[in-house]
Amino acid sequence: MTGEAQGRSGRRPGNSGARAAILDAARRRFSENGFDGTSIRAVAGDAGVDPALVHHYFGSKRQLFAAVVELPIDPEVVMRVFAAAPLDELGATMVRTLVTLWDSELGSAAVAVLRTMVAGTDPGLARSFFVEVALERVRARIATETDDGSGRVALVASQMLGMLIARKVIELEPLAAMPVDAVVAAVGPTVQRYLTGELG
Amino acid sequence: MTGEAQGRSGRRPGNSGARAAILDAARRRFSENGFDGTSIRAVAGDAGVDPALVHHYFGSKRQLFAAVVELPIDPEVVMRVFAAAPLDELGATMVRTLVTLWDSELGSAAVAVLRTMVAGTDPGLARSFFVEVALERVRARIATETDDGSGRVALVASQMLGMLIARKVIELEPLAAMPVDAVVAAVGPTVQRYLTGELG
Repeated sequence: MTGEAQGRSGRRPGNSGARAAILDAARRRFSENGFDGTSIRAVAGDAGVDPALVHHYFGSKRQLFAAVVELPIDPEVVMRVFAAAPLDELGATMVRTLVTLWDSELGSAAVAVLRTMVAGTDPGLARSFFVEVALERVRARIATETDDGSGRVALVASQMLGMLIARKVIELEPLAAMPVDAVVAAVGPTVQRYLTGELG
Repeated sequence: MTGEAQGRSGRRPGNSGARAAILDAARRRFSENGFDGTSIRAVAGDAGVDPALVHHYFGSKRQLFAAVVELPIDPEVVMRVFAAAPLDELGATMVRTLVTLWDSELGSAAVAVLRTMVAGTDPGLARSFFVEVALERVRARIATETDDGSGRVALVASQMLGMLIARKVIELEPLAAMPVDAVVAAVGPTVQRYLTGELG
């Protein structure tokens, strides 16, 4: 609660006060208990509001998470693009989708999210984002009886995190100015191998 | 100069004052002019000391740079390991060397360097580190008449940066606990392909 504490008595605090209280409670819950271990009801309880108000302001739990992490885009949208790709084109699709997103006007927000994650004030939240939100459906899709896919998607995350940093934060040339097609040609096979290839 | 300004008259300021002045001048020069565009003489001039004192305190220009970036290890040592590897084992060697380093007691310092770079207060310094110090000799080694190798080493940097973040900052499992051999088996071929393979 950053300086906008308001009285609890009488009517609800103004919209921005309730929103902030919900975000604050959600940040703590997600960070401590992860995405799966957090319920809208618990967040609402912590914030002293009705669960319906949480849904009203933020939509689904995934959307609430996106708001907490200050994601510039609903992860659902990205996941739908991934889900529509044939498995043998998933690597190239993930690289093309993410790099295109970072090159758009949403890129600076993606960099801001990354900076927050790397600043390390809240590694629990970052882990939760990758393990339970960003990577979960791709993991489930590539899982087999002998390999749950979690190592594979973590490897994918390592390559894509590094690409975001090299291209958008450090602006390492010639990678920063490389056309998306060239990035996809270079990095798509890496991600595809991490997803479905032989890992040695 | 952070609160330890000392008079210029009479004897040199104490060792720590001169060291701090040199580091301060070097940070500005490296950041503005890059590694190649910075001379020990210019740094010494800015700091108001004799160039010999810079060499005395910090050794080579590369070692001065390492001190500015607060690298936990002289990059020369790492480069010698890379240089000793046969070209077709360079990918695996780079992954094994860096991951082993990060897993050692030097790992937390490596993470600190990364955090500073990603915080983005000084992208010029980070670029200079990768382009002119960390990657230059590997680039020169893989350069051909038609490809100077700069895109290839930037791709390597993207994968290794992301590995450092995933494994050591976010501690993304199962990657964070993966034995070094398994990381080398998974990521070595990626780095080898970036260095010497077909990039599409």
